Amino acid sequence: MRDPRRIRCTYYIEAVDVARAAAALAGEQSSGTFIAVPGESDRIRERHAAEVVAIRELGECAPSLPSRRRPERVTAAEVVVEFPMVNIGTDIATLLTAVAGNLFELVELYACRLQSIGLPDEFVAAHPGPAFGVAGTRKLMGVPDGVLIGTIVKPNVGLVEEEFRGVVRELARASIDLIKDDELMTDPAYLPLETRVRVALEEIADAEQVTGHRTMYAFNITGDLAGLQRRHDLVVEAGGNCVMLNVPVMGLPALAWLRGFAQVPIHGHRAGLAASMRSPALGVDFTVWQQLARLAGADHVHASGLGSKFYERDEQVAANIRSLQAPLGTTTAPLPTLSSGQNVHTPGPTFAAVGSTDLLMLAGGGIAAHPDGPAAGVRSLRQAWIAAVSGSPLADAAAEHAARGDSALAHALQTFPAGA
Amino acid sequence: MRDPRRIRCTYYIEAVDVARAAAALAGEQSSGTFIAVPGESDRIRERHAAEVVAIRELGECAPSLPSRRRPERVTAAEVVVEFPMVNIGTDIATLLTAVAGNLFELVELYACRLQSIGLPDEFVAAHPGPAFGVAGTRKLMGVPDGVLIGTIVKPNVGLVEEEFRGVVRELARASIDLIKDDELMTDPAYLPLETRVRVALEEIADAEQVTGHRTMYAFNITGDLAGLQRRHDLVVEAGGNCVMLNVPVMGLPALAWLRGFAQVPIHGHRAGLAASMRSPALGVDFTVWQQLARLAGADHVHASGLGSKFYERDEQVAANIRSLQAPLGTTTAPLPTLSSGQNVHTPGPTFAAVGSTDLLMLAGGGIAAHPDGPAAGVRSLRQAWIAAVSGSPLADAAAEHAARGDSALAHALQTFPAGA
Repeated sequence: MRDPRRIRCTYYIEAVDVARAAAALAGEQSSGTFIAVPGESDRIRERHAAEVVAIRELGECAPSLPSRRRPERVTAAEVVVEFPMVNIGTDIATLLTAVAGNLFELVELYACRLQSIGLPDEFVAAHPGPAFGVAGTRKLMGVPDGVLIGTIVKPNVGLVEEEFRGVVRELARASIDLIKDDELMTDPAYLPLETRVRVALEEIADAEQVTGHRTMYAFNITGDLAGLQRRHDLVVEAGGNCVMLNVPVMGLPALAWLRGFAQVPIHGHRAGLAASMRSPALGVDFTVWQQLARLAGADHVHASGLGSKFYERDEQVAANIRSLQAPLGTTTAPLPTLSSGQNVHTPGPTFAAVGSTDLLMLAGGGIAAHPDGPAAGVRSLRQAWIAAVSGSPLADAAAEHAARGDSALAHALQTFPAGA
Repeated sequence: MRDPRRIRCTYYIEAVDVARAAAALAGEQSSGTFIAVPGESDRIRERHAAEVVAIRELGECAPSLPSRRRPERVTAAEVVVEFPMVNIGTDIATLLTAVAGNLFELVELYACRLQSIGLPDEFVAAHPGPAFGVAGTRKLMGVPDGVLIGTIVKPNVGLVEEEFRGVVRELARASIDLIKDDELMTDPAYLPLETRVRVALEEIADAEQVTGHRTMYAFNITGDLAGLQRRHDLVVEAGGNCVMLNVPVMGLPALAWLRGFAQVPIHGHRAGLAASMRSPALGVDFTVWQQLARLAGADHVHASGLGSKFYERDEQVAANIRSLQAPLGTTTAPLPTLSSGQNVHTPGPTFAAVGSTDLLMLAGGGIAAHPDGPAAGVRSLRQAWIAAVSGSPLADAAAEHAARGDSALAHALQTFPAGA
């Protein structure tokens, strides 16, 4: 009997014969084989075969990817393939193997990109999703509304203990909502995780005495799996309230495993994701990946940022953030995390594009390089966000704050030119 | 002081200004930041900065990858970047973050591919490498020399217990060296791993009574990490002698973790790898990835096959196999695993290209669809390999065997046309 629970995938492909290539893809990724073999009965085909349910040809083009053959022209198409859930169950690694596995290798395909995925309710319901998400993170920070402002300890690498202490002190006393390790900073001998945890939590506690604000610190526990729980426990036992994982280099199964024992929000970094995302002819779209990262339990999900120094254009970044805002079963909403090149000019276009302040905006230079110091940097970003939400021009907001004796936004506007 | 232990990476990049883009890459992946910030001292730069040590321009081209900007022409170049090991230590996830992380996202780059890597001895020596490799696998199989012949249970998915039993029985009685699960077959409700382990090992033990040959079975234990050790133990406690992992979907850290407790060879499948490998302008080359898979402990490493239905051309496949044959510190040699479209015509060109029989050749249809049955299929492949090594034409070898009453190779030549 045909399994009514189908995983529906839309691929962009290029092929000489699109219908034949789509069938090869569906066969390779389900009940297929090289050649008719005994045992591949009608029952198996009917119950287990992936099915090509739609093909929309998009015209001819030169092949985007190399293959064994070298046709001059191929046909581009969007094809929809449905995979019976009976083949996959609810396991994320098995799902990836089916919908994003060997198919990228097929000789018939000159492009193959998983553009979107529709997961059956039963698949979604089998995963816990984020334990904290937006609401849980706000609660831990004591910030009920407004965009959350964060930053990254810079330089990425190389600080020794006392330098690190100085950076964290300055940032925590700036009343920032979140400080995170750079993705490159894991557990180096010159500044071990244990030292960072101790020093950062001391400084954050001290700063809280001054500011009344509890800064969250995302400690990067990326590294060997044998030590993952130990590193998580080290953070939690010291009183830390967030751990960070470089999800693509660790793998989605590692994220799901961490979710199983994590007691604090998981800050999901995407370092390495572009290797399988940036070519429009290959790999997996962010809007697919983010669903799996959410199911696996990421509370915060990195999505680049408008105006960033990364490759995605603003409309693409906005679409990716919106995909994070879309409901996914009954899972808790994750916190879209925007980074790279974020400064006082970014809130306007960001709010216009995504219509929400349930965001974590990470600014590096925009905070650390503010001429009046990090506290003014943080303040200027909060002011810029309030202006964005109320629709006020930045210059007006800056003038109003300056008239009340706070030049943070005005100085930020002078320091960080628009569109830089 | 400058760290003399450097990780040397060669990238193919495209940029408007190659020198500037290479510097941005090196900065982003080491001690860089957006903007000069206090604390980025000369000491940090000297000790921790990644360094561009060579740039070789390759000419102009149209940009291979999209970015925020849209130049008509860019310059292609090979650049060599050295990363101080002090930033990374010996952790594989941290290494990946540094050499294959955010750099793929950089707006200045219109292509970015990690083509080769040179790891310091100290990095290599920190990892155990394969526990079994070629030698250990041969010992477990009782096959001291010659190419090892394996196959995949087909159809990939959908067999129920008694059908599965029948397939394994026929293959094990064919005196095959290895049977493996398809990468799509993990632990589905209709044919759980536990059932496969019980049934396959029963059939293999029974077949051994008949043939005197012990077939290895690679049970796919891909799935959630919480259950990975349980699934491994299930295989080992039942007497199984190999486990399989879909390495790219699980992540290299999962492989390294499994290596830590595995008591049997790890069969490393590459499903999903092409998502970050197939575009020549993006991602990570196989010759880099295989080094990390070996350090993480894969005993068998999939490398497609000459004449396969996968995209890589034969010269590329051969180069990839040779990369697996190259020494890597003092680690045990892994078993290159060739698959897809392998039949009696493949040994000749394969041996000519890689000059070794320390290989595992997986044939699906080439065995299951042999007109005289799988035993004849296996025999025909072994005979084809002996012919390849001795330089005899296949037709002559087939005639000689036929003259002695064994038509397996002759019938294979009739059934599987060359270059099909």
